[in-house]
Amino acid sequence: MKEIQGVKNPLIKELRKLQQKKYREKEGRYLMEGFHLVEEALRAKAPVELLLVTHKGLAEWGEWLDQQSVTRYLVSDEVMKSLSDLPTPPGIMGILTKTEAGKVDFTGRWLLLDRVQDPGNVGTMVRTADAAGFDGVVLGHGCADLYSTKVLRSTQGSQFHLPVVQRALPEVIEAFRSQKIPVYGTELNEAAKGFQEVAPTANVALVMGNEGQGVASEILALTDQNLYIPIYGQAESLNVGVAAGILMYHFRS
Amino acid sequence: MKEIQGVKNPLIKELRKLQQKKYREKEGRYLMEGFHLVEEALRAKAPVELLLVTHKGLAEWGEWLDQQSVTRYLVSDEVMKSLSDLPTPPGIMGILTKTEAGKVDFTGRWLLLDRVQDPGNVGTMVRTADAAGFDGVVLGHGCADLYSTKVLRSTQGSQFHLPVVQRALPEVIEAFRSQKIPVYGTELNEAAKGFQEVAPTANVALVMGNEGQGVASEILALTDQNLYIPIYGQAESLNVGVAAGILMYHFRS
Repeated sequence: MKEIQGVKNPLIKELRKLQQKKYREKEGRYLMEGFHLVEEALRAKAPVELLLVTHKGLAEWGEWLDQQSVTRYLVSDEVMKSLSDLPTPPGIMGILTKTEAGKVDFTGRWLLLDRVQDPGNVGTMVRTADAAGFDGVVLGHGCADLYSTKVLRSTQGSQFHLPVVQRALPEVIEAFRSQKIPVYGTELNEAAKGFQEVAPTANVALVMGNEGQGVASEILALTDQNLYIPIYGQAESLNVGVAAGILMYHFRS
Repeated sequence: MKEIQGVKNPLIKELRKLQQKKYREKEGRYLMEGFHLVEEALRAKAPVELLLVTHKGLAEWGEWLDQQSVTRYLVSDEVMKSLSDLPTPPGIMGILTKTEAGKVDFTGRWLLLDRVQDPGNVGTMVRTADAAGFDGVVLGHGCADLYSTKVLRSTQGSQFHLPVVQRALPEVIEAFRSQKIPVYGTELNEAAKGFQEVAPTANVALVMGNEGQGVASEILALTDQNLYIPIYGQAESLNVGVAAGILMYHFRS
């Protein structure tokens, strides 16, 4: 296995650029931190270009690594630290090629996100959609980038289990409505319909919105119905990831 | 208003220690960052000892500040930065006295947390308990400190709306059981009971556990029944804050 010690190595300098969204988009690849995610990626036969492993990582996962047919480099802790955004850099990192799901079928249960900005919220909702057996997630414009390490960390690998696509929400909503699949927006407004009044269903598109502003009014105007989750106490609102979980499991129950 | 410019000012040095849990416990006070939380604290008549405000904060909230009868200091951006754990320090910070709820009544709906370590998760669950109209939250040993700025940020002020107490869980569980109030643990185990099979109820204690390990087996052994949330897809688990939201709203529905 080739060894890279210095942070100024040309390959490492190239990879470090992938911490920025513009380079991920330009180059069509991204970084993935930590054993759990890398293992999920390989299990899902995702396109892993190469692996970087520290000495410590090699000691821990050497046997597992020997079974993988992926190019790998041994790197110093310093190199790993220069690529990681974690306080304690991981022992292993993957470099993956971005693969957009091809033609997706907008039927079944889908989660649509409108300008959700917090990476942890986006990732958690992808993970919850997976757990709830949803059929896919659409990230509308202005959402946190799926390929940032923070989002990936929160997904816990769920992006390998269901399609997560980037599309303009109005077109997607139209695709559902043209098939008579109900599209529900969410609002913090008691004029909307309490979610408990809507029956679970096998086909549904659920739109969750920005942390501060909710779903944009232009989007709310395109839905069949807008729902709210009652607030019984004095909190002003729910965290959007928690709200999405409550609603997705409602549609399953 | 007195002005403090230097980070070596004795008061500021004293306050900076409150970033550490041991000093918060020793001194019985804590820092609270940002206008929204400080406003909630004053509205709830929480014991705010003093306020620190930057020039920018003064420009923004000067009128509001004039209506508050709390000692305040004008501080430099440098001072605020030295006290804050945010990348962009807030324009206002409060120093509050810790107040433990006195005798609490373990009836109604309560959320019990067993070694939940992520500050964001603890805070989000307090916020969700408030939204769901729960009557209180118990933090068992090993939970993230309620008085850390990260937890406080995620609570969004909900700790002023319902009692949040630190107690040993076995005693609390016994208090509920002695009143015939059902205590439900949570498990990632299909041998447990699916939550949809349990009816909503006005009296309930729900125990959520550590992110990696779940609820400790000693605690699970003390409950009336343990519940699980079905996983319909390929995710290994749900985020604990999302799971708590699904269950708390289930008990309300």
